[in-house]
Amino acid sequence: MPAFSRFTPLINALPATVPFVGPEAIERGRGLAVKARIGANENGFGPAPSAIEAMAVAARYTWKYADPENHDLRQALAEHLGCGADNIAIGEGIDSLLGMIVRLVINPGMPVVTSLGAYPTFNFHVAGHGGRLVTVPYVDDRENLDALMDAVRREDAPLVYFANPDNPMGSWWDADSIVAFAKALPETCLMILDEAYCETGPAGATPAISALIDRPNVIRTRTFSKAYGMAGSRVGYAISTPGTAGAFDKIRNHFGMNRIGVAAAIAALKDQAYLGEVIEKIRASRDRIAAIATANGLNPLPSATNFVAIDCGRDGAYARSIVDGLMEHGVFIRMPGVAPLNRCIRISTGLESDMKLLEEALPQVLKTLG
Amino acid sequence: MPAFSRFTPLINALPATVPFVGPEAIERGRGLAVKARIGANENGFGPAPSAIEAMAVAARYTWKYADPENHDLRQALAEHLGCGADNIAIGEGIDSLLGMIVRLVINPGMPVVTSLGAYPTFNFHVAGHGGRLVTVPYVDDRENLDALMDAVRREDAPLVYFANPDNPMGSWWDADSIVAFAKALPETCLMILDEAYCETGPAGATPAISALIDRPNVIRTRTFSKAYGMAGSRVGYAISTPGTAGAFDKIRNHFGMNRIGVAAAIAALKDQAYLGEVIEKIRASRDRIAAIATANGLNPLPSATNFVAIDCGRDGAYARSIVDGLMEHGVFIRMPGVAPLNRCIRISTGLESDMKLLEEALPQVLKTLG
Repeated sequence: MPAFSRFTPLINALPATVPFVGPEAIERGRGLAVKARIGANENGFGPAPSAIEAMAVAARYTWKYADPENHDLRQALAEHLGCGADNIAIGEGIDSLLGMIVRLVINPGMPVVTSLGAYPTFNFHVAGHGGRLVTVPYVDDRENLDALMDAVRREDAPLVYFANPDNPMGSWWDADSIVAFAKALPETCLMILDEAYCETGPAGATPAISALIDRPNVIRTRTFSKAYGMAGSRVGYAISTPGTAGAFDKIRNHFGMNRIGVAAAIAALKDQAYLGEVIEKIRASRDRIAAIATANGLNPLPSATNFVAIDCGRDGAYARSIVDGLMEHGVFIRMPGVAPLNRCIRISTGLESDMKLLEEALPQVLKTLG
Repeated sequence: MPAFSRFTPLINALPATVPFVGPEAIERGRGLAVKARIGANENGFGPAPSAIEAMAVAARYTWKYADPENHDLRQALAEHLGCGADNIAIGEGIDSLLGMIVRLVINPGMPVVTSLGAYPTFNFHVAGHGGRLVTVPYVDDRENLDALMDAVRREDAPLVYFANPDNPMGSWWDADSIVAFAKALPETCLMILDEAYCETGPAGATPAISALIDRPNVIRTRTFSKAYGMAGSRVGYAISTPGTAGAFDKIRNHFGMNRIGVAAAIAALKDQAYLGEVIEKIRASRDRIAAIATANGLNPLPSATNFVAIDCGRDGAYARSIVDGLMEHGVFIRMPGVAPLNRCIRISTGLESDMKLLEEALPQVLKTLG
């Protein structure tokens, strides 16, 4: 069927590819059922019961739009983080915030620096706004801060993306190195410090809020999708100076937040005891995944996230065959998209029932592959 | 506080104004409590109990992202509408879809045709992408189809926005006139036919789906926010040819939909009996609002929506003072933004308790104003 004939040249040039294929699409496409959903770095331990209760209460008020200023959530986050509410912008998940940041900064042809194999959805937004990706290889499965800085300077790039802890590798940098990087960055370059996984990292891996809060060229992005277990709620937030955080107001969908998600996020934030319990479960599950990998002759990498990257010791085709093979057993996992990261598979933490399915399926798949 | 120094020139030129101030912000700003929330065209009759139940069930699965293909909702809508699932794109409310449509079509400086005083959020998105608004006055409080067509041709505009039924005036055109307009439109102009309020219109006001489904340059937008009573759920959809509907995939947030909202929308769609009851309540409430207006010497305009525009017989300042005065009594309403529409106030349908508050407050406000 024909499409409208006058989309912008940029739109016409964009591919129809998507950053990620969802597990539901894999189920439909391959006629398989996902039994262990441990591929999208969701959190099967789920949100706090208090958050679920807040969702049920908020359901009665879904006839109302959410407060377009997100006042209560921003206040709650400010108190939790120790900053001002005007340091915070709310968005429909980090993905939405990333799209807006790219739009705020990038005109077609402008360079954007990121690591080769880092977050595909960020790259999707860069492409969507006509930006030119300048990529820097990982070193030792970690983003290369020095090379990122070199690329920013060489290209006079207005935007650099850096995730800590990192996805898809699970690696991390210490807070001091990150703060030093941010402070050394030209003020003409905006740093996205994506901290989607900050809650599950080790002590010392996340800079204090105060360390970067006065820097107009740093935006830290965080989410309720990972440790808080609410990926389906679509609540993310950005932390920056009031001036930079306020820029989102120029373009965001002011009535874009769903009311139940916002209410649940406020409740979840209050329940730090539950969050602490979940983080312990995630750490235990990381160990469990690592043990399963090791028992099968594979090499789990250290992880600061709610997933473990596992070096399978061969090329991307081999790792892909493991991913596909596990899916035959109903075990949904993913893998990095580019070499050399794609020698790995990536398995999200989950319930013991998920781990048992993985434990049973993995040796069978490896045996079949030989 | 300073902002990042290198936002795009377009971003720097955008105002910080927002399309609408929410009732919560009015409450905070003026130290008043909203008792009757009948200003944002929300639906106080609320979603179907079956939809609320679906929300409660879905709350247990918020640890999962929603299906990025929105398969089940698109299938359900396709069956309901009598078209293909590939004719449908899902978005986080019509607002989000409008933003994406503008982005698909408009480069800075390009003309966009709409009616003077029509949907401010659409204008917000046009400004946000650097489009140049070309506005056509309403005639007899209705959008002027002939003048819109003239403006499209004169400007060689790639985009025209038309709402039927209309917001903020509640007026409407018959289906035949709209279909004729769409068919006469140059194929180089994309028509947004915003049907946010289509469920509450009279028979014959909404074109059949089949009447426009083969036109690549028509996108119809609809929502679960109005008649379905789920504004806080943020579920809207667009209907077009598969080619045009598929263009959203190039730029949308594939994981942007909240899981509870999608589940609720599917449940709400199944419960057409409940929808029918609500529509009857909305119609009765329109009559009630009209009666209150008439009893106070004001002139209610005919409405095909879940609100009534009321001609207050003087200028915008007078209407504004009524809006502000009602808020002093806890009655939140709104009004059109530009002359001559702003001689009116706009009151959303609601529960009898809301109507009673309106009925009590309005004569007091008018008496004070003299």
